[in-house]
Amino acid sequence: MLSKLERELKKFVLDRDWDQFHSVRNLVTQLSCESAELLEHFIWSQDDKHLQDPETLKNIKEEIGDVLNCLVLIASKLNIDLPQCGLDKLKKTAKKYPVELAKGKSLKYNKLKENNKNGTPN
Amino acid sequence: MLSKLERELKKFVLDRDWDQFHSVRNLVTQLSCESAELLEHFIWSQDDKHLQDPETLKNIKEEIGDVLNCLVLIASKLNIDLPQCGLDKLKKTAKKYPVELAKGKSLKYNKLKENNKNGTPN
Amino acid sequence: MLSKLERELKKFVLDRDWDQFHSVRNLVTQLSCESAELLEHFIWSQDDKHLQDPETLKNIKEEIGDVLNCLVLIASKLNIDLPQCGLDKLKKTAKKYPVELAKGKSLKYNKLKENNKNGTPN
Amino acid sequence: MLSKLERELKKFVLDRDWDQFHSVRNLVTQLSCESAELLEHFIWSQDDKHLQDPETLKNIKEEIGDVLNCLVLIASKLNIDLPQCGLDKLKKTAKKYPVELAKGKSLKYNKLKENNKNGTPN
Repeated sequence: MLSKLERELKKFVLDRDWDQFHSVRNLVTQLSCESAELLEHFIWSQDDKHLQDPETLKNIKEEIGDVLNCLVLIASKLNIDLPQCGLDKLKKTAKKYPVELAKGKSLKYNKLKENNKNGTPN
Repeated sequence: MLSKLERELKKFVLDRDWDQFHSVRNLVTQLSCESAELLEHFIWSQDDKHLQDPETLKNIKEEIGDVLNCLVLIASKLNIDLPQCGLDKLKKTAKKYPVELAKGKSLKYNKLKENNKNGTPN
Repeated sequence: MLSKLERELKKFVLDRDWDQFHSVRNLVTQLSCESAELLEHFIWSQDDKHLQDPETLKNIKEEIGDVLNCLVLIASKLNIDLPQCGLDKLKKTAKKYPVELAKGKSLKYNKLKENNKNGTPN
Repeated sequence: MLSKLERELKKFVLDRDWDQFHSVRNLVTQLSCESAELLEHFIWSQDDKHLQDPETLKNIKEEIGDVLNCLVLIASKLNIDLPQCGLDKLKKTAKKYPVELAKGKSLKYNKLKENNKNGTPN
């Protein structure tokens, strides 16, 4: 399905002759803006209760669609297999946050080690 | 492959007992931060030449992996089929930017119409 | 004091011959990245309790310094008087959010009007 | 003038009874969103030419006003003297980027040292 999306996105861009604007830099800048538009829906909400409102959820889904579409275009430009790229990074992150140190903690990895050195029980 | 990534991500989170931290708001905030880390690689580059450096490209791929993984976790929380969500949004965007108005132009859709009204040739 | 900061920033840039990199676009991109670095300190915190940790607060202050310095450089490029620019925008925002509609509500202005039309009491 | 802006902002918030929504986290999240709204004006522009359009410049100034106002509210919450905070951080940044290493280069400080070790001439 991701490959279908990529095909449709490329057609969309081709039809509009927009490839001339799609440097990786421009797309990455757009990705940041789209992510912020998604975040905007959460500025004033302490919890996720507002997600129960169908209209809000619909709007949030559309922002997620924008973020994804932007990401697929970037990956396409760079010849990146997105799911494999995610799996590769997850492997690296898993090493940075070993289960025995990270379990139940929301600390950054550099803090985790410090936290462990100080003899704080897991 | 996206479903494999989702499974691995959920296992990663479960193993570390991190679901308690993963409100949609928190994940969406992280998504914005990861997108900005990707953007950081492009602040001073007018073009995409620095992508030819293998180390830079490797770092950029890792940031893309982080963005994707975050997005997959958000979609998983909200029971969203990511590729379908992208296709749905693309359909809407295509209507907002009709080929005859948008071809070869990098204007926002509200400017596009204005631009067209003023009789500017396509 | 803001003018002293601007002078020092301009000297800092001149000494390093960095003006060649400081297009408004580049600085605005940096501003977004610096804002995200500040936000990073808040991803996993439901409240502001972590601000009581002196080291965290010190790091947060440094990120705020980065955001401000970036903003001052942008304003300097565009010949903008920053405080006046803030006052002008506040005036406009105040009109968008009239006290009688907005009091005690964290809705966007378009929702505020809707909310009011539906006869919801203030 | 910055103190006048702070006073006006506090009055604006008080009048609307919005302090209940203004945790530092919420304001920092808003700051990121406002920065991205500013960045949005630069996604498709390779250079700063579009700044010559008076309407575009007006919109950009308003976004800058939003970023500043958000920053002033955050600083006010944390009892931070903004210009001093900028000066303090600039001092630190100046040490990280010594003139003799950084002159004419747009590298990150960790790359700067590497670059210098390799005997690359300034």
